[in-house]
Amino acid sequence: MLQKLTILGPGLLGGSIGMAVRQRKLAGRVVVWARRPEAGEQAVALGAADEATHDLRRAVADAEVVVLATPIGVMRSLAEEIKFALRPECIVTDVGSVKYDLVTQLAAVLPRFVGSHPMAGSEQAGIEAARRDLFVNAACLVTPTETTDRAALQWVHDFWQSLGGVVRTLSPQAHDEMVARVSHLPHAVAAAVVNVVCREDGQALNFVGPGFRDFTRIAGGPPAMWTEICLENRHELSRSLDALMEELGRWRTALENRDAVELQALLKRAKHYRDELRFRS
Amino acid sequence: MLQKLTILGPGLLGGSIGMAVRQRKLAGRVVVWARRPEAGEQAVALGAADEATHDLRRAVADAEVVVLATPIGVMRSLAEEIKFALRPECIVTDVGSVKYDLVTQLAAVLPRFVGSHPMAGSEQAGIEAARRDLFVNAACLVTPTETTDRAALQWVHDFWQSLGGVVRTLSPQAHDEMVARVSHLPHAVAAAVVNVVCREDGQALNFVGPGFRDFTRIAGGPPAMWTEICLENRHELSRSLDALMEELGRWRTALENRDAVELQALLKRAKHYRDELRFRS
Repeated sequence: MLQKLTILGPGLLGGSIGMAVRQRKLAGRVVVWARRPEAGEQAVALGAADEATHDLRRAVADAEVVVLATPIGVMRSLAEEIKFALRPECIVTDVGSVKYDLVTQLAAVLPRFVGSHPMAGSEQAGIEAARRDLFVNAACLVTPTETTDRAALQWVHDFWQSLGGVVRTLSPQAHDEMVARVSHLPHAVAAAVVNVVCREDGQALNFVGPGFRDFTRIAGGPPAMWTEICLENRHELSRSLDALMEELGRWRTALENRDAVELQALLKRAKHYRDELRFRS
Repeated sequence: MLQKLTILGPGLLGGSIGMAVRQRKLAGRVVVWARRPEAGEQAVALGAADEATHDLRRAVADAEVVVLATPIGVMRSLAEEIKFALRPECIVTDVGSVKYDLVTQLAAVLPRFVGSHPMAGSEQAGIEAARRDLFVNAACLVTPTETTDRAALQWVHDFWQSLGGVVRTLSPQAHDEMVARVSHLPHAVAAAVVNVVCREDGQALNFVGPGFRDFTRIAGGPPAMWTEICLENRHELSRSLDALMEELGRWRTALENRDAVELQALLKRAKHYRDELRFRS
């Protein structure tokens, strides 16, 4: 058992980690740091931490583990601010949903850094949505590089597992390519479809069925957070968008040519993947 | 109350209409016709009809109302086959999900034809999925033209209302434009996204989250049925696809330029529409 685990940024993910660690008694003390003092107090009030502070160095001093759970854009400067306050053996991990640049930069600053990405976000971004069972059965991706400390990697792997996650290990680059496809592309496309459908008039909203409702649900995430994610992963997301536009071009041509064989082939392939996915889950 | 209502094609929609009419005692007899005798017998066994026949002319003779509930491609030839067997005052409606060409052609053959489109389909296409409450709170679109018989129009309007539907009236052209946007575009795009995400390897399926699962659900409809719908509505669907590709081009440019302001504007607009939709429902 750890003596002290510190979470920087008690939002949905940071708050849920705190709740899960306390429930499972994985640390003697959970400390949160938040830029706004009220946010730290709220985390304590909701059971996500034993103590809150807005003194960053005091928050991380003596911690055996620090979890970066702020927006990605803040993590780099936080790493610079904490690096001299950490114990040398302190393990640092994060929850950022894009990894390649981030892992490269954080690992250069923090010797025992291990990148993580628990795929347990939701539309709601705040601690109000935090739950101690958020990671149960969620895919938790761990993204080591060749220089990652092996003992720290093992610890972070086991940590997510002990929170109930299904842990998988991927290189940062493979991770970014994967999440561009399974997460960022669907989000961007859902937003684009909603805008196209609703743009000309509000009338379309009177006629929506369940399919379109799913698109709007996906498109409902916090715009600032998704802007950051999409920009952070812009190379891989662009590649996925290009592939999608090529595929939509196939649809366009098949419609133009009244090519039922091609259309049905496109639809059958998608249904095949769906059935395979249903079989697995 | 009608003496006899006849349903041609007891699938999901035809079967559900039969069940709903019988439950609400809107007709003395519900008769179904199916190309395959077993399908008709199954409809009777499931409570969707009082009698089944595979003699098409006998099925429609003496009926005050006939509902075409086969695939769209079959409706035109059925109309030709039944036109001399119908009573002159017989009202004919259909459940086809694309209207412009179909309404034009059927109205030329059947004097008291009124186009309908109950938006209550689902992934399942067979009578096994039929339910007597399928139309309760479903949008039921009625698509008259300038030459549609007004009394027949009123009857068809009231018919869907009496099955629990929320009836809206649209011209066939406005209908096709609308469903291209709210239904056919999301379906085509969901299939395209699934194919792009899953194509290169099956590995992506190990990492899917809830957003992508929604896409696969939408993409899971029967390929033959969707091929027919997309081809039938190819002009409007093509226009929607063009608009979407333009919107995705905006994403592509914003990513290339690292334009956070533009990306956030695109995401905010989609979220705004989503919030408006949630408010309404």
